[in-house]
Amino acid sequence: MKTIKTISDMREARRDILDSVGLVPTMGYLHEGHLELVRSSRRENKYTVVSIFVNPTQFGPAEDFDRYPRDYPRDLALLEREKTDLVFIPSPDEIYQADYNTWVEVKKVTDRLEGAIRPGHFRGVTTIVSKLFNIIKPSRAYFGQKDAQQCVVIQKMIRDLNIDLEMVVVPTVRESDGLAMSSRNVYLSAEERKQAPILYKALSTAHVMWSEGERDSQRLRQAMTEIIQQNSSGKIDYISVASKLTLDEIEEAHPPAIISLAVKFGNTRLIDNIIFE
Amino acid sequence: MKTIKTISDMREARRDILDSVGLVPTMGYLHEGHLELVRSSRRENKYTVVSIFVNPTQFGPAEDFDRYPRDYPRDLALLEREKTDLVFIPSPDEIYQADYNTWVEVKKVTDRLEGAIRPGHFRGVTTIVSKLFNIIKPSRAYFGQKDAQQCVVIQKMIRDLNIDLEMVVVPTVRESDGLAMSSRNVYLSAEERKQAPILYKALSTAHVMWSEGERDSQRLRQAMTEIIQQNSSGKIDYISVASKLTLDEIEEAHPPAIISLAVKFGNTRLIDNIIFE
Repeated sequence: MKTIKTISDMREARRDILDSVGLVPTMGYLHEGHLELVRSSRRENKYTVVSIFVNPTQFGPAEDFDRYPRDYPRDLALLEREKTDLVFIPSPDEIYQADYNTWVEVKKVTDRLEGAIRPGHFRGVTTIVSKLFNIIKPSRAYFGQKDAQQCVVIQKMIRDLNIDLEMVVVPTVRESDGLAMSSRNVYLSAEERKQAPILYKALSTAHVMWSEGERDSQRLRQAMTEIIQQNSSGKIDYISVASKLTLDEIEEAHPPAIISLAVKFGNTRLIDNIIFE
Repeated sequence: MKTIKTISDMREARRDILDSVGLVPTMGYLHEGHLELVRSSRRENKYTVVSIFVNPTQFGPAEDFDRYPRDYPRDLALLEREKTDLVFIPSPDEIYQADYNTWVEVKKVTDRLEGAIRPGHFRGVTTIVSKLFNIIKPSRAYFGQKDAQQCVVIQKMIRDLNIDLEMVVVPTVRESDGLAMSSRNVYLSAEERKQAPILYKALSTAHVMWSEGERDSQRLRQAMTEIIQQNSSGKIDYISVASKLTLDEIEEAHPPAIISLAVKFGNTRLIDNIIFE
């Protein structure tokens, strides 16, 4: 496994690869969710590149950029075990020069949900992903379904800007009690961690109701709200019932639909979602 | 010479080209300035692609998108004569789908000069150029020095977004009386056309003053203002003395500097510039 820190070295390494390249962009502190992305890439491409970069421009000024968990030696050991071919792990100065000032922005679909609560977040995401695409030139890029809105936004960027690659969305990997894997789960106190699977429990209940014919978004939302409020101390940021393609809110949950939610435990925001199709 | 109208056909044609590709992005209604770009590309690349696309997103609502001059048969004949390999000439619907909503934007350097007078103009330019780069994947891209701010903005976008190509800026081509070639010159009345070389006369005077040691921006601007006001009916939008690299206004015209100006004759805005280095 090769580890590369500079853009010019990455470009040089890329020039020697004539086969298909899969890219797994990450912010490090890897968990099984990331490793599933790596395995998907390994199955579908000759060569797999993982980037590790905690991207400052997708964090708001009051957010957790500084305390975002980092453990590069552990990340590299995990990626080595997965037979990753190349890890691109640049410094912030390598990626953003002092007078950096160019932004890639998807409008409208970024106004709601995570975008409404985290202004500027998706502009940071689409900008760094564009840069990584230009540096690494992957044939395919892998993202986790857990960040549902991110997937919709990046897919739209790829289509709108005519970026020539295939985006692959990999299902959410969960702990045995249903909690979606996330680097931020490490922030949870023991008590919060015990309550956190309530997100998945609420989503699963909505799924059962839906399977039994319930289509009314209001009733689905209501049931989920009650489950979370009655069984945890979590504060609901939003519960959204939306078209899976546009993320427009829908009154009737006809497929393909997505229910997504964000719940705060103390200072830790957890997100999760489930697809109806 | 091959003419291609769809993105998918363009991608397919591009896949077959393993040699260097030069791209000359144009809005058509070609003149000698464009043809010089084509010749530069032909000298430096095995394969030359010219795009013709009057890009709606770089025109303001009150600007001349609808009446912008178009003559595709003549353009194709000129390009054929220059031995252009491929012309990409898509429709607006092919480039911008109905729900199109992704933008590439360079900040700050786009706030002044043309950007101040034409809000949103450069966002349209950087977005279409990004799309053309992603579709055509050129090794080199050719732009004319006449659009000086556009050159600085695109160069910054390329650097900031790590776009892997070389940008080539080709000197302005002029009519025998000094008027910079522009598709918009066709808007000029006979009387305006007679006065229009005053832009170049003012720039040349500033250049002589500079060669003789004048560095004071205020005095250079003053001399140019007087020449234009005393010898034409042109209304000055701006005369800028700026750093060539950042386009920041400078009080002393130390090299590399650029003097650029915009002058209106009736409804027709002409721009021109000269470099001091």
